[in-house]
Amino acid sequence: MNQQKGNLSIHSENIFPIIKKWLYSDHDIFVRELVSNASDAITKLKKLSTMKEVALDSEESFKIEVRLNEADKTIVFSDNGIGMTDEEIKKYINQIAFSGAEDFLNTYKDKSDKDQIIGHFGLGFYSAFMVAEKVEIHTKSYLPNTDPVLWTCDGGTTFEMETGSREHRGTDITLFIGDEGKSFLNAYTLRQTLDKYCSFMPYEIYLTVEGEEAKEDAEPQEAKPLNTTTPLYMKMPSECTDEDYKDFYQATFKDFKEPLFWIHLNMDYPFNLKGILYFPKLNTEFDTIEGQIKLYNSQVFVADNIKEVIPEFLLLLKGVIDCPDLPLNVSRSFLQNDGFVRKISTYISKKVADKLNGLFKTERESYEGFWEDINPFIKFGTLKDEKFFENVEKSILFKTIQDQYVTLDEYLAEALDKHENKVFYVTDHIQQAQYINLFEAHDLNAVLLEHTIDAPFISMLESKKENLSFARVDSDLNEFFKEAGDAESDAEKTKNEEKLQTLFRDVLENEKLEVKLERMKNNDLSSMIILSEESRRMQDMMRMYGSAGLDPKMFETNGTLILNANHVLVSNLITNETLESSTRDMICAHLYDLAMLSHTQLSPEAMTRFVSRSNLLLTRLIS
Amino acid sequence: MNQQKGNLSIHSENIFPIIKKWLYSDHDIFVRELVSNASDAITKLKKLSTMKEVALDSEESFKIEVRLNEADKTIVFSDNGIGMTDEEIKKYINQIAFSGAEDFLNTYKDKSDKDQIIGHFGLGFYSAFMVAEKVEIHTKSYLPNTDPVLWTCDGGTTFEMETGSREHRGTDITLFIGDEGKSFLNAYTLRQTLDKYCSFMPYEIYLTVEGEEAKEDAEPQEAKPLNTTTPLYMKMPSECTDEDYKDFYQATFKDFKEPLFWIHLNMDYPFNLKGILYFPKLNTEFDTIEGQIKLYNSQVFVADNIKEVIPEFLLLLKGVIDCPDLPLNVSRSFLQNDGFVRKISTYISKKVADKLNGLFKTERESYEGFWEDINPFIKFGTLKDEKFFENVEKSILFKTIQDQYVTLDEYLAEALDKHENKVFYVTDHIQQAQYINLFEAHDLNAVLLEHTIDAPFISMLESKKENLSFARVDSDLNEFFKEAGDAESDAEKTKNEEKLQTLFRDVLENEKLEVKLERMKNNDLSSMIILSEESRRMQDMMRMYGSAGLDPKMFETNGTLILNANHVLVSNLITNETLESSTRDMICAHLYDLAMLSHTQLSPEAMTRFVSRSNLLLTRLIS
Repeated sequence: MNQQKGNLSIHSENIFPIIKKWLYSDHDIFVRELVSNASDAITKLKKLSTMKEVALDSEESFKIEVRLNEADKTIVFSDNGIGMTDEEIKKYINQIAFSGAEDFLNTYKDKSDKDQIIGHFGLGFYSAFMVAEKVEIHTKSYLPNTDPVLWTCDGGTTFEMETGSREHRGTDITLFIGDEGKSFLNAYTLRQTLDKYCSFMPYEIYLTVEGEEAKEDAEPQEAKPLNTTTPLYMKMPSECTDEDYKDFYQATFKDFKEPLFWIHLNMDYPFNLKGILYFPKLNTEFDTIEGQIKLYNSQVFVADNIKEVIPEFLLLLKGVIDCPDLPLNVSRSFLQNDGFVRKISTYISKKVADKLNGLFKTERESYEGFWEDINPFIKFGTLKDEKFFENVEKSILFKTIQDQYVTLDEYLAEALDKHENKVFYVTDHIQQAQYINLFEAHDLNAVLLEHTIDAPFISMLESKKENLSFARVDSDLNEFFKEAGDAESDAEKTKNEEKLQTLFRDVLENEKLEVKLERMKNNDLSSMIILSEESRRMQDMMRMYGSAGLDPKMFETNGTLILNANHVLVSNLITNETLESSTRDMICAHLYDLAMLSHTQLSPEAMTRFVSRSNLLLTRLIS
Repeated sequence: MNQQKGNLSIHSENIFPIIKKWLYSDHDIFVRELVSNASDAITKLKKLSTMKEVALDSEESFKIEVRLNEADKTIVFSDNGIGMTDEEIKKYINQIAFSGAEDFLNTYKDKSDKDQIIGHFGLGFYSAFMVAEKVEIHTKSYLPNTDPVLWTCDGGTTFEMETGSREHRGTDITLFIGDEGKSFLNAYTLRQTLDKYCSFMPYEIYLTVEGEEAKEDAEPQEAKPLNTTTPLYMKMPSECTDEDYKDFYQATFKDFKEPLFWIHLNMDYPFNLKGILYFPKLNTEFDTIEGQIKLYNSQVFVADNIKEVIPEFLLLLKGVIDCPDLPLNVSRSFLQNDGFVRKISTYISKKVADKLNGLFKTERESYEGFWEDINPFIKFGTLKDEKFFENVEKSILFKTIQDQYVTLDEYLAEALDKHENKVFYVTDHIQQAQYINLFEAHDLNAVLLEHTIDAPFISMLESKKENLSFARVDSDLNEFFKEAGDAESDAEKTKNEEKLQTLFRDVLENEKLEVKLERMKNNDLSSMIILSEESRRMQDMMRMYGSAGLDPKMFETNGTLILNANHVLVSNLITNETLESSTRDMICAHLYDLAMLSHTQLSPEAMTRFVSRSNLLLTRLIS
């Protein structure tokens, strides 16, 4: 065989199945493509008018009409734009040129091209065949002395062309809807789809419903366009008021709670990006955090929540982003590997950090007011994006048990003479209320970390900040709680401790119970439970994740019972040799239960015993 | 213009951008396509051998080799299958025939075609250009007296062909990997991708790593194929042991917990579907329910969790499904609208219901053993799929407070003489332990509904079953708890009730507190709180969802305090006129706190007061 060269060829009879079944993942995309084409046809005409190549009637208003006729099973997309001659039909329609993809690739190489016009009757037009069994084009060019054209194709590889009857400049594309597209013959569905893709398109779009449905209804046809031709994000930030931002938020996301604050993105160089990101107000702590970032390309909706373009943690926000340099259609794995996309993501992440730092520095009070709502977003961001953590680190707040907001540095500085590099925290301010009381009584501070994200957030901080450690308020008996100097000798204390431990183990029938005797400053406190930070984290982890083959109970411990030697009940247990044994047992059991009650939830059996013992105690008062 | 007819044409220079950027959503798909092609080449050869058109060496083993050379930046896909002549190259490679899509459409029309062979060097081959900047084919046909061929293409629209050097029958496809594919030059990544797509392919696949990395490593090359050529689901259920199913589960899902049970799907008519669905064991109540259903097409992996094919609720299970009649590549919106896909989904749902009903009827004991693990799946299914609910309704179990499992009918029948069409339930058996005690003491039964899915599940049952209602154990004071006949007149009871209500409102400084006086059979019970089912559901809903503009506190109520006139403390409060007021107040406050403690979590302040009052009570014992 001699060496041969040649050209690859394509079987055109196979192109329709590909377009119909394969190319687009969403059935409704034909609406976007056909309205975009109509919009482009108007843009081209206006451009020619600017260049004085065509004289336009100043009275004429440009608009796109979508006409639904359910009885005839047709949808018409009509514009009064540039129109096409028969030669243009041959060039742009009869040759499936994939111009969309081609344009995208060219644009991508040369990002300075601001004049990009999407669509161009390229592949986009053929998306009509995803829902139509036949398509007609009625068009008349703006050029004088050209005939109107009627083009017809029934979804095979042949077309028919003849002189058409259209009298005015522009193009009507009529879709004869087949079985696969019949859901779009419903006015509500069609309207929803138009809203989804075309809400911000630059020319007015009208939906009219023709035929029987419209007649019966007898309502006047819509006189208002369904879109906003100049969405707020296209304006300069200096032109927008707070009310504008709030109205836009409400209209776009149908969320009637006001957003907390927003960031208006407006970048021209090195890439073109506009948009508004809103920090939403969470309703209650039970709200699931689920954001919505809508991505647009030159005012055409592309997709929701494209995680390749938006930093993952910002997907929790709500907002719109318009980036004309991004392709309308492109595979996700392509986006993942693209450096340009990464730059966008980095830019957005940086802008968010800047805004937070700015608020922290100049409006700390209102920033503190937001903190409860925004902290889960921010903590999630610091966990997902190291760079973001470094950027916002100094603006991260902690709410203290005194309802104040402090930074980590502020907390540590304030506590310096009491404990170094250690942060005490609360995970449930109701359950841990007795420990909080103790902290407050001894002028110690602790921070509230009650959200599920706080456990990984603490671990991250500990791993980044050498020597820093977090300890829950019930993890140890702080030295500050104890009286300085002991009233008795070490030997005596040990003897008493052993005596009490034996007594409590006996009464509670718990041979493993650890009992410690301490002289605490607070005389009112009789007993409490402590559980080391390590044991508790291990227990939490076991509960959260489980672990194959290991019994979670292995790691269970009820902690240590601390008895306050300064409380009259405890000292009595040590010294009163004549105490009746039933009374003594009752006191022991109750001291343990009261400590447990402040530490965790009692078991059903323990609670039953506790309530009945309490009733008994009360009865003694009246007998 | 005369009427014209013509053929649509395609610009071939635009086909590569489309294939590279648009057609496939996953970058790694080239691995699947090229290994599938290799596998098909072997299948074709074996078929010719069966038809005696070719004589094969009985010693020869068929296999596919994937050779990675990181230094050279190449990956070779090599098979000893049928090979290609220069004519076949021209036909199958040089004309981009989209045969994959074409085949699919044909197959789809005629589902009886069991001989479908995917791929065919159609569009699949060109997916190589998603990662390669140049591709070489070295091939030699099985036909005698044909030359080997070397074909080369650098991703443009031209190719080169010449006589090649391959000596043995088969095909090597060499990919010269470009920047976009460089992650696949890592042996680990490539191995992962092969595992993902090719684990069950019908011929042995070997991965070998060549070049420096391999040398340094000095480990022997893999002598074992990386795939299982006959996956368990392809066998007849009668050939498979329990051990086989468990081993397959462990190997496929890397889950070392044994599955609870499984369903082997094996259907030939009216469509071809094989697979195994496993009900996994949940680790702890904290386990998130996240299943994995892997979809295969003739032993080639297609995707995970295709919600269009698998009923949504079954996505919580783990399993494999192989359906050769489904396309390898097709848009999701197409699947959504396809009747065939709906039939598959309906079939699977029916099979699952049949299995559950079978287990319930014939192996009720082990079915009860599974119930804790499987009930969230099943309840989710009944909520999502009405048909499924009807199918499994009679096999739904409820765990009672006596740790027994009953059906709804069984529960209602047992309770018939006490309450009709009413189910009492518990949402937290620890918090509600005192109410459970009361139910048990009066021989009343209640069921545990502690999962988050139980609230919507109850609502669904109430809406489907006329007259049926669910009431939480603390929603009302059951008549059975009260003594028959009153010891005092109505007027006297009302007087006492008013007296106590005034006293408690006074002591607790709560003007809205509702107090009811009842003679209860249980003398040990002093006080309890009840909260009507409607109020509680409203509160729960407000907490779950919030509601714009409404203050959640609007719906808050602490319920009604029930005082047992038969308890000595309560009767004493009524009759003992000489009771010291500090003692009386202490008793009131404690009775209320004890009732609240069994009903909900005390507020920090209430708990502090309660603990300190308890200490005081104990101190009275020793003074």
